[in-house]
Amino acid sequence: MSASPQNQSELKLVKQVQRLADQHLPKKTEQIALQIGDDAAALTQYPGKLTLISTDALVEGIHFDLHYMCPEDLGWKVLAVNLSDIAAMGGNPIGFTISIAVPPLKSGAFLTRMYKGMMELATNTKTVLLGGDTSASPGPVFLNLTILGNVKPTELITRKGAQPGDKIFVTGELGVSAIGLELLRLGAVRSKAVTHLMSQHLRPQPRIKVGRWLAKNHCASALLDLSDGLSTDLSHLCKASNVGAVIDSKKIPLPTVNSTMSSLVSKPLLDYGLNGGEDYELLFSVPAKKEIQVPNKIEGVTVKQIGYVTDKPEICLTNEEGRVRPLLPQGFDHFRG
Amino acid sequence: MSASPQNQSELKLVKQVQRLADQHLPKKTEQIALQIGDDAAALTQYPGKLTLISTDALVEGIHFDLHYMCPEDLGWKVLAVNLSDIAAMGGNPIGFTISIAVPPLKSGAFLTRMYKGMMELATNTKTVLLGGDTSASPGPVFLNLTILGNVKPTELITRKGAQPGDKIFVTGELGVSAIGLELLRLGAVRSKAVTHLMSQHLRPQPRIKVGRWLAKNHCASALLDLSDGLSTDLSHLCKASNVGAVIDSKKIPLPTVNSTMSSLVSKPLLDYGLNGGEDYELLFSVPAKKEIQVPNKIEGVTVKQIGYVTDKPEICLTNEEGRVRPLLPQGFDHFRG
Repeated sequence: MSASPQNQSELKLVKQVQRLADQHLPKKTEQIALQIGDDAAALTQYPGKLTLISTDALVEGIHFDLHYMCPEDLGWKVLAVNLSDIAAMGGNPIGFTISIAVPPLKSGAFLTRMYKGMMELATNTKTVLLGGDTSASPGPVFLNLTILGNVKPTELITRKGAQPGDKIFVTGELGVSAIGLELLRLGAVRSKAVTHLMSQHLRPQPRIKVGRWLAKNHCASALLDLSDGLSTDLSHLCKASNVGAVIDSKKIPLPTVNSTMSSLVSKPLLDYGLNGGEDYELLFSVPAKKEIQVPNKIEGVTVKQIGYVTDKPEICLTNEEGRVRPLLPQGFDHFRG
Repeated sequence: MSASPQNQSELKLVKQVQRLADQHLPKKTEQIALQIGDDAAALTQYPGKLTLISTDALVEGIHFDLHYMCPEDLGWKVLAVNLSDIAAMGGNPIGFTISIAVPPLKSGAFLTRMYKGMMELATNTKTVLLGGDTSASPGPVFLNLTILGNVKPTELITRKGAQPGDKIFVTGELGVSAIGLELLRLGAVRSKAVTHLMSQHLRPQPRIKVGRWLAKNHCASALLDLSDGLSTDLSHLCKASNVGAVIDSKKIPLPTVNSTMSSLVSKPLLDYGLNGGEDYELLFSVPAKKEIQVPNKIEGVTVKQIGYVTDKPEICLTNEEGRVRPLLPQGFDHFRG
């Protein structure tokens, strides 16, 4: 549900499907609290608890390349990106189904290793494997994972609640995954610092505990996960909440990159922080009067205020000198390479 | 969850994944009533209602061929095969997520038409589109649908409850889909009779109402859907219930096939009835004392008794002359063509 479109043609495709889905959506039923358009759908099947469901596919040659991604990392990641959608609703993960289509020649050790990585994260997050489907593929490897979670209706956080004056926060560091991906593609020598960046791309850490903390403490007015890059995901939050935002470029938390690494990557560091996708950090807004309740770290993860919400429906970036420019959603092209 | 393996290598692959899943299954938690191994998993999140979840993928070149299957039919079918898993638990469908990976050149009209067929069946069965993911594919079209349903714990029917002496029933006619597929591949002239057979392959009717009837009337001791063919699916039921079975070949409901069609297809009609997959009819056992409660038609669908359950763990077939031979699971090769 936080599909990260990989290029312009895919973006067009995603938009088409959204239009199709909108056309075909039945009137909201009593059972459905929230449909397509957020990180997960929410079902009101039972009093006092919403069921959350989300699904994400990873396709070889589009979302990953087995030349630089081992099967264990792939298994971890397909679960991580789905867990991130549950985190982005303030929810608890419960379990998941996994569908795999794999070329027969690749099936043996590949599947064993893929499961190993996936179940490592499942164990870490107390998420249960519920079932799946396995098939041969005549082409690339396809993985699709559907995750179930739940959340109390009073703790659900959607993309919709941001109000002018709210402060905007992010967890962790931004652009790390995109830099890590570029270094992986370059086949960079794996120093400790390089490995750290690469591992953020290969094994993102879904921020479930942070999402739960925000939900339980009723701090956040809107929340989503950073799958497409800050500029794009912030535009999603603003659109859903019908607001705008001002982001301070000096405040964006960027990774420490030494001069060797910096000479390897193709763009200035800030570009990765603004537009790099797949960090799976959280982006959230907090009413000004609750700002004081937000600590510097939540569940061990750094949290940083980077801007504020405005009533004007546009997103602006202030630079070092305090000059303001529009920040357009450019996160979808992070995979073009 | 009722993945229909398409050939020996895929069967091997499915078995490997089952072993992997078994290894990785955490101890059954309080939340999980039923995990991998039935048509759907069942979660006990809330008192009085089980949440059912199942997932099935359709891969171009493995499960379907767009030369003889239009996008509308494909959309219908990917939902139908998943609805059939909910029917096979006695459940009510609620909603679904759909993931699609499609080559960019094919994306426009293809997606619109695929959605049309899918939503036609969704409307018919009051099943709601909850969300999805869309991606480009560098190879074949890949569809994965995950379905949610629910059922009262007292109405859940698994594969496990068959007892020696129980009678074995099936809905509808068997082998129709496999014959339809063969005629589609041959490009047979579409007379009314031929079209009927083809449409069973292209647009199977999930037996949700029959499943619900069996659940509410507490008739069936075990239940599954016929995705892999009678010989294979019956072996699943027998293995899960730790029983055997005797099937009367004369009683197997076969479609009416005229001499022209019969000369076109490659095998005797009974072979399709025994081993042809993808009928998505229901197979169920009924305690002998409840046999009288089972009408000839349930919700307009023909129901026929075809054999009985034994305590010996083997499956036998009696022929026209009353001779008995072992019935081996041979349903997985129906797609080899």
